[in-house]
Amino acid sequence: MSNSFGTLFRFTTFGESHGKAIGCVIDGCPPGIVLDLGFIQKELNRRRPGQSSITTERNEADEFEVLSGLFEGKTTGAPLTFLVYNKDQRSSDYDKLKDVYRPSHADFTYEKKYGLRDYRGSGRASARETLARVIAGAVAKQILKKEGIGFNAFVKQVGNISIPAAAYPLDLNLTEQSIVRCPHKETSDKIVELIEAVKADGDSVGGIISCRIQNVPVGLGEPVYNKLHAALGNAMLSINAVKGFEIGSGFWGSAMKGSQHNDALNIKNHKITHLTNNSGGVEGGISTGEEITFNVAFKPTSTIAKEQQTINTQNKTFNYLPAAGTMPVYCHAQCPL
Amino acid sequence: MSNSFGTLFRFTTFGESHGKAIGCVIDGCPPGIVLDLGFIQKELNRRRPGQSSITTERNEADEFEVLSGLFEGKTTGAPLTFLVYNKDQRSSDYDKLKDVYRPSHADFTYEKKYGLRDYRGSGRASARETLARVIAGAVAKQILKKEGIGFNAFVKQVGNISIPAAAYPLDLNLTEQSIVRCPHKETSDKIVELIEAVKADGDSVGGIISCRIQNVPVGLGEPVYNKLHAALGNAMLSINAVKGFEIGSGFWGSAMKGSQHNDALNIKNHKITHLTNNSGGVEGGISTGEEITFNVAFKPTSTIAKEQQTINTQNKTFNYLPAAGTMPVYCHAQCPL
Amino acid sequence: MSNSFGTLFRFTTFGESHGKAIGCVIDGCPPGIVLDLGFIQKELNRRRPGQSSITTERNEADEFEVLSGLFEGKTTGAPLTFLVYNKDQRSSDYDKLKDVYRPSHADFTYEKKYGLRDYRGSGRASARETLARVIAGAVAKQILKKEGIGFNAFVKQVGNISIPAAAYPLDLNLTEQSIVRCPHKETSDKIVELIEAVKADGDSVGGIISCRIQNVPVGLGEPVYNKLHAALGNAMLSINAVKGFEIGSGFWGSAMKGSQHNDALNIKNHKITHLTNNSGGVEGGISTGEEITFNVAFKPTSTIAKEQQTINTQNKTFNYLPAAGTMPVYCHAQCPL
Amino acid sequence: MSNSFGTLFRFTTFGESHGKAIGCVIDGCPPGIVLDLGFIQKELNRRRPGQSSITTERNEADEFEVLSGLFEGKTTGAPLTFLVYNKDQRSSDYDKLKDVYRPSHADFTYEKKYGLRDYRGSGRASARETLARVIAGAVAKQILKKEGIGFNAFVKQVGNISIPAAAYPLDLNLTEQSIVRCPHKETSDKIVELIEAVKADGDSVGGIISCRIQNVPVGLGEPVYNKLHAALGNAMLSINAVKGFEIGSGFWGSAMKGSQHNDALNIKNHKITHLTNNSGGVEGGISTGEEITFNVAFKPTSTIAKEQQTINTQNKTFNYLPAAGTMPVYCHAQCPL
Repeated sequence: MSNSFGTLFRFTTFGESHGKAIGCVIDGCPPGIVLDLGFIQKELNRRRPGQSSITTERNEADEFEVLSGLFEGKTTGAPLTFLVYNKDQRSSDYDKLKDVYRPSHADFTYEKKYGLRDYRGSGRASARETLARVIAGAVAKQILKKEGIGFNAFVKQVGNISIPAAAYPLDLNLTEQSIVRCPHKETSDKIVELIEAVKADGDSVGGIISCRIQNVPVGLGEPVYNKLHAALGNAMLSINAVKGFEIGSGFWGSAMKGSQHNDALNIKNHKITHLTNNSGGVEGGISTGEEITFNVAFKPTSTIAKEQQTINTQNKTFNYLPAAGTMPVYCHAQCPL
Repeated sequence: MSNSFGTLFRFTTFGESHGKAIGCVIDGCPPGIVLDLGFIQKELNRRRPGQSSITTERNEADEFEVLSGLFEGKTTGAPLTFLVYNKDQRSSDYDKLKDVYRPSHADFTYEKKYGLRDYRGSGRASARETLARVIAGAVAKQILKKEGIGFNAFVKQVGNISIPAAAYPLDLNLTEQSIVRCPHKETSDKIVELIEAVKADGDSVGGIISCRIQNVPVGLGEPVYNKLHAALGNAMLSINAVKGFEIGSGFWGSAMKGSQHNDALNIKNHKITHLTNNSGGVEGGISTGEEITFNVAFKPTSTIAKEQQTINTQNKTFNYLPAAGTMPVYCHAQCPL
Repeated sequence: MSNSFGTLFRFTTFGESHGKAIGCVIDGCPPGIVLDLGFIQKELNRRRPGQSSITTERNEADEFEVLSGLFEGKTTGAPLTFLVYNKDQRSSDYDKLKDVYRPSHADFTYEKKYGLRDYRGSGRASARETLARVIAGAVAKQILKKEGIGFNAFVKQVGNISIPAAAYPLDLNLTEQSIVRCPHKETSDKIVELIEAVKADGDSVGGIISCRIQNVPVGLGEPVYNKLHAALGNAMLSINAVKGFEIGSGFWGSAMKGSQHNDALNIKNHKITHLTNNSGGVEGGISTGEEITFNVAFKPTSTIAKEQQTINTQNKTFNYLPAAGTMPVYCHAQCPL
Repeated sequence: MSNSFGTLFRFTTFGESHGKAIGCVIDGCPPGIVLDLGFIQKELNRRRPGQSSITTERNEADEFEVLSGLFEGKTTGAPLTFLVYNKDQRSSDYDKLKDVYRPSHADFTYEKKYGLRDYRGSGRASARETLARVIAGAVAKQILKKEGIGFNAFVKQVGNISIPAAAYPLDLNLTEQSIVRCPHKETSDKIVELIEAVKADGDSVGGIISCRIQNVPVGLGEPVYNKLHAALGNAMLSINAVKGFEIGSGFWGSAMKGSQHNDALNIKNHKITHLTNNSGGVEGGISTGEEITFNVAFKPTSTIAKEQQTINTQNKTFNYLPAAGTMPVYCHAQCPL
């Protein structure tokens, strides 16, 4: 397994959806940082399902404790360990999943790879693992904030509803006012409507999240392998249900000509800038100083309330209809990148 | 810098576009493999620009030598080293680039990151570095072939010309008959026409390459970080000019519903299969046994023959028109994934 | 910081001596192992100070809990997390250390490296961190036991008292009968006597631990960097207070001639063996199939009850005499390699 | 295999003793360094056998070429590649080794691990691989010299002849005047005499090399795993024939008491120093600012001209006497750490 991510700032996550606890160990956090634990809790709350009528039913408060690495409120350079005990450990609900490989879940692949699996709520494959990433991200954001680096992620599309081109540039301050985290009110309303309809039908939908990172200094990233956007892509594609990643012009850029796509360099107020940002803030794998912009595609949640053909562990096909107690997340709209 | 890729099979590349040589060291190649050096040369020839009228002018034969790791024709488990001496080292052509930051090249970012740069043919940032990847890939393909694993990459789109949906399923045996490596004759002809027009105009275009990997056994890939498709994404996004990566349904999957997208499991001839393959052969980061399918988006080549605004190293803006001797690759159509 | 060790079987430790908890996350444990938790507790008990009159006073039971990675008693391939809550968190005892750099402790170097330090019981630099290694080791031993691989570590020397040459070969089954883990009764008695005298004088002593690993198959280890004994040396030298490592003939081998030192190969009962084992079971970095034998040198515990010159954080020299409450481990005799 | 070493400054070596070439790729060398290639050649010459009557007969000049990473005499941040073509590739001399497992060589272990081996001059297991380390070291020394960091390695013992305690402190400027690199004239003379006698007898001897590193700033090294001395130990134990490593007081320290061993802190000329340096410049894995001091034990060269029992690849025992053409290095006295 590979439960760690990062090099200088490296975190390791552990814990299963319905095990005792979920947590992470962060190695490489600089010393002397006064950690704002309230901010970490706020980020955890943003991630939490059950915030509104349109999402998954699981509703637990995800309160964390700090086990190590903090002394008198400051980081010491020693590993920071965070723990969230799971309140919802009723595994009896999940016994019926024991012999089923649910379609497009990781049931089949885990069992073939490991010879057994923790079938309670998808075990380690549950999106609940992202809780640990959110904690690590909330620590990282505090370190980066000191350098003036800021993050804005928002929902750009759900199903076939997308923010229209005419709505750009967006006011990203409005993102948090939308229960689906879409900063364009009209689109947000349509998305809520769509999700409600999809939910009523026992189905789910996919979506696209867009992210912007401001004030990244020139020169970050590796020029050959692990280019800055390749490392970002690796991170994003490791999030449950993600199927695509594009930086800057991305797939649309493939249809363009070089003379349209090239970002002319310019001097403005004695500073080097670019007239456009089709590169999404990265040239040759290295940050240009412009805003980093990328999109992440999520497939529809695979847990749905509709009958589907599948097989069981005895290799028999049958029609599987999940019981009411194991109901779906209808979309990934809250994923706080 | 980060000039190595991979874990068990790990290669390190070195060399600049117009330096003495380009090469790679492969560590972790299994012992006892009878290497087919002719196949490696064939793959290098496929990568080579200058194969047809529509691509870059540079025309050198890229002959490699093996420096280590082979004994009596077999790999020994020791590092395999391959070297290609550059024939084309005339750096005088490039002196005029010394003070210019070409738009959407890595000139500006390299110089800001390192304080200096090898400006001859983009130095380390040149797509000529992919030569070393092709060698490592040609070794890897030979190892994987013994397991029955095969690869098919083809051009799916150039500019706004794309293989039409009605043309699927494609006959991928036709790929090599097309000078732009597009297996659909009609589309291939249109692409050649487009590139010729673009070339006549001194411009370039982007494109999308699609890749299929057959016979991957169930169970490969890591389930949390470095998921199989995340590792593939990291690799692909590290290729020059790549701006996007998607596996299976990718960005299109975001518009789908769960009931459409889920890949129902099935038993066929006593073997577990899936009725569809929207997942692109990966579930929960682990291979399902189905074909791995992914798309890679390339931006248009940034080297064009048109005048563009840029700045020089003295921070003055000016209109830059490259000299005839430093002419462009017009598209990435040959990149042999 | 670097709080992880290992590649395929990789563990990360966290926690400070007087923080909330100490623990470890093990990534890469094979799935399907029925873990014997009782054995882990037994190993923890062996490590624990306070087992006899001659060691450090700290006496806490070190009970662990398993947070993740076990399902129905078996490992799942997911990260195994172990936690030991610290009972002894009274930090007031340690306030007096706040401004002191104790001689040959890590106080000075930590503070210079990180700009601050957790001064409670040496924080992260405490030998209490080895608790987490013992847990990881107890898991590893269970996996290796299935392959027939066994471990025997024993105290070979404390201060200037060493097991005499005439006492070899030793009966290593006697090790656990000695409170200082020395399998030679006479030497053990002398060591206990020495430690009692040293303790009465408020001083400490060093020692040498010897380790034997049986039934290691031929072929383990890397041939160039990270040779098997280099990886072992790296591990051992990372234990608190260790100043030396030697494999096989070690430092004594330097005085030998090649004709004496070379281990002649032999066939015995149709099996390849060696007539001697000066190599300590490793040739060219790779295991030979013979017993792995190595020695590890520990300096005397730096915490003593004698007055010593040192400096404080205001760069003033003074004579430091630790208070009764922060008393020493008198020797490392229990360290269960 | 594991042919790379280091993290930020990471080098990969390749090549067999009697293959086409030996070389290394250095990744992570800072940009803008004006490399003194003459110094690298000087270091290579120091390593070279055949410099005097007392060592191995192989006499080739080891001239290197730089393949990449240098532009206008300066490093660029791109990988530096160095190559030394082997002049001495006559493999016929080695055919007789094909079926022999020489005692205490890596013949047996390589063949069991890899299923085959390059038997020409020990292939990858040859000490000729250290040539590549010397190059990487000669680059590293130039970078560190700018920080004032200096290195002094010298022969402290060969066989049972050791520099007497009374000769300390040594004048390390005399090291290069001795053909066995022992700075104490009297001891050097005795060592030469010993080696000549041993050589006449067709035998070999071991030895101990001591190393001192000056002006290392406070704060280098990791505090838990990969402590500074553990990383040094890992490096040293990866050199051919090394069987032991000790830092500071090392094995001798085990016999000391804490009150003798602890290094009292002191203020001298407003600078923090230590009254003694038993720690060898490292406390808690982190450099103290004092001189780094360590010893490295080499076993006697395993290639000797005496008849010894061994087995062949058909598992038959026989008495092996090497032919005159494959004669030994008699000791490791030149190894330029």
